[in-house]
Amino acid sequence: MSASLDLPAVTVLGLGPMGRSLAAAFLRAGLRTTVWNRTPGRDRELIAQGAAGAGSAEEAVAASGLTVVCVVDYDAADALLRPEPVTRALKGRTVVNLTADTPGRARDTSDWAAAHGIRYLEGAIMTPAPSIGTPEAVFLHSGPRALYDEHRAVLEALGGTHTHLGEEIGRAATFDIALLDIFWTAMAGYAHAVALARAEGVTAGELAPFAQGIGAILPPLFTRFAQDADDGTYSGAINPITSAASAMSHIIAVSESHGIDASVMRATAGLARRVIDLGHGRDGFIRVAEVLGRR
Amino acid sequence: MSASLDLPAVTVLGLGPMGRSLAAAFLRAGLRTTVWNRTPGRDRELIAQGAAGAGSAEEAVAASGLTVVCVVDYDAADALLRPEPVTRALKGRTVVNLTADTPGRARDTSDWAAAHGIRYLEGAIMTPAPSIGTPEAVFLHSGPRALYDEHRAVLEALGGTHTHLGEEIGRAATFDIALLDIFWTAMAGYAHAVALARAEGVTAGELAPFAQGIGAILPPLFTRFAQDADDGTYSGAINPITSAASAMSHIIAVSESHGIDASVMRATAGLARRVIDLGHGRDGFIRVAEVLGRR
Ligand SMILES: NC(=O)c1ccc[n+]([C@@H]2O[C@H](COP(=O)([O-])OP(=O)(O)OC[C@H]3O[C@@H](n4cnc5c(N)ncnc54)[C@H](OP(=O)(O)O)[C@@H]3O)[C@@H](O)[C@H]2O)c1
Ligand SMILES: NC(=O)c1ccc[n+]([C@@H]2O[C@H](COP(=O)([O-])OP(=O)(O)OC[C@H]3O[C@@H](n4cnc5c(N)ncnc54)[C@H](OP(=O)(O)O)[C@@H]3O)[C@@H](O)[C@H]2O)c1
Repeated sequence: MSASLDLPAVTVLGLGPMGRSLAAAFLRAGLRTTVWNRTPGRDRELIAQGAAGAGSAEEAVAASGLTVVCVVDYDAADALLRPEPVTRALKGRTVVNLTADTPGRARDTSDWAAAHGIRYLEGAIMTPAPSIGTPEAVFLHSGPRALYDEHRAVLEALGGTHTHLGEEIGRAATFDIALLDIFWTAMAGYAHAVALARAEGVTAGELAPFAQGIGAILPPLFTRFAQDADDGTYSGAINPITSAASAMSHIIAVSESHGIDASVMRATAGLARRVIDLGHGRDGFIRVAEVLGRR
Repeated sequence: MSASLDLPAVTVLGLGPMGRSLAAAFLRAGLRTTVWNRTPGRDRELIAQGAAGAGSAEEAVAASGLTVVCVVDYDAADALLRPEPVTRALKGRTVVNLTADTPGRARDTSDWAAAHGIRYLEGAIMTPAPSIGTPEAVFLHSGPRALYDEHRAVLEALGGTHTHLGEEIGRAATFDIALLDIFWTAMAGYAHAVALARAEGVTAGELAPFAQGIGAILPPLFTRFAQDADDGTYSGAINPITSAASAMSHIIAVSESHGIDASVMRATAGLARRVIDLGHGRDGFIRVAEVLGRR
């Protein structure tokens, strides 16, 4: 497909699995897409699909009004964006940084961009690379609303749902980190449950349908407990944290009787114990959210 | 409602929130229901609804061919069942123990029952007390299949779905413990995410719709990863554990920059690190299930 010159142009810096998926989706949407990656050769397939290659990062960003950056972390993003020739070429243009890192790094990069006349938006991608260009993709954005609206149509060419979370530039990273916190902690619980079940002669496949059932009750509880947390009610009427603590001690005992590391559940039980020791044993487990930040 | 004498009879020992819900469901289903609790007075409302009270645990178990026990743990169940007069009264009758504890305690109680001529089944209740008698209730059972089939109709009077997991008496407790492991670990992740989001100025209510989204992707992943675990494939093609480890280090850094305890995520990251150090960095996170039991 040869893109015509009146289409919006976009540059993608960083051609890992995610950067390649983003560039491919832009191409499929008919955008003039320029690509660049630190290690050469990663652009080959994209160029075959109609992307423009570039001899340097500064040449790549000069080709489009909008540059999307997607590399491993902000150290890598800085290594691409902050060399003087690239910074100069970006002046007056827009960077959308879809690299995952901390809200603090996002704020720092936004300050750097402002100091160099670069227009700057932040984003986080909540779904895996194969989802890009499909309705399953989930993008979170933050930064100046008007700037987001200006580039919205191009970003929406990536498919899926796009949510502008607010002007505070760190919000996309905050949501990203909080959501990954839920995801990876839950996965640690699942991996541990599989190990524990196996030690008792139950396969992961036998456990899976019931694990699905437990997984299905989590989303509505997240919503109910969010209200508890925001209200400061932490009701334990359905399930007091003392009862949760008793279940946790059983999990730890069975794990350790089989020589299975129970460090994650030990840490979880430690949080429950702290809530109980503070006199909140009749509250629900979500009271933990309130004591986590107390020294 | 006055129950007629040709209905099956059931005794419920233990009238905490769950025991009371079980007894109330048996009554609503029209069964002759006898109730008893260590602390007197907890039977009052049930007796008003038609239950028979009892002067002692031995009197209570003598009233029915089937006794359901539901107390805080097996120490409490032992305190009810193992005094000599109760044990004697139970001879030739059936006990269904719906108390939560470890598979080892279930096996021990089964041995004790066999030695005293008591027919014994194990169960676990996976849903909260208000679910009892509704289609939402989930019961897991284990023990002799023929004995389960004999009492199945009475147990099904409790509503919901009942699954017989197999003859090995510890299976219900194994599934219970593994599923609670997933549940409480995931809740620890959620409580932590709420604390982290708050520290960055995001309320639990703002996070909740996205937390729901993350919660919704867990069940299908549990099934996919169960296959990986049973096959020993642990594929990291979609998401290598090195990438998960990088997200975890961001979560820890942001948490600790706000003085938020990150012990659960530190333990989770420690497991990921161990997999990577063993040379499995290209594998998916579920490889953790395989290394958890290695010293
Ligand atoms: N993959 C997914 O499914 C997924 C899902 C959601 C979010 N994300 C996020 O998307 C971002 C990119 O992920 P990815 O999957 O494409 O792979 P990745 O392994 O996280 O990042 C690879 C990219 O980073 C570049 N890079 C690393 N260090 C660099 C440096 N010092 N200077 C310049 N470039 C450097 C690599 O260039 P070289 O080729 O030269 O090494 C490559 O382009 C990450 O922040 C990730 O968390 C990914
Ligand atoms: N509640 C739920 O939503 C729920 C959900 C799933 C599973 N479960 C399981 O169901 C079981 C019962 O739970 P629960 O909610 O009813 O309340 P609980 O607080 O776990 O147990 C209370 C019951 O245990 C009795 N008990 C405690 N120590 C005893 C002892 N030494 N001797 C005799 N009885 C003793 C109490 O009698 P006293 O009144 O004399 O103290 C009361 O009948 C537990 O194993 C729990 O894990 C509960």
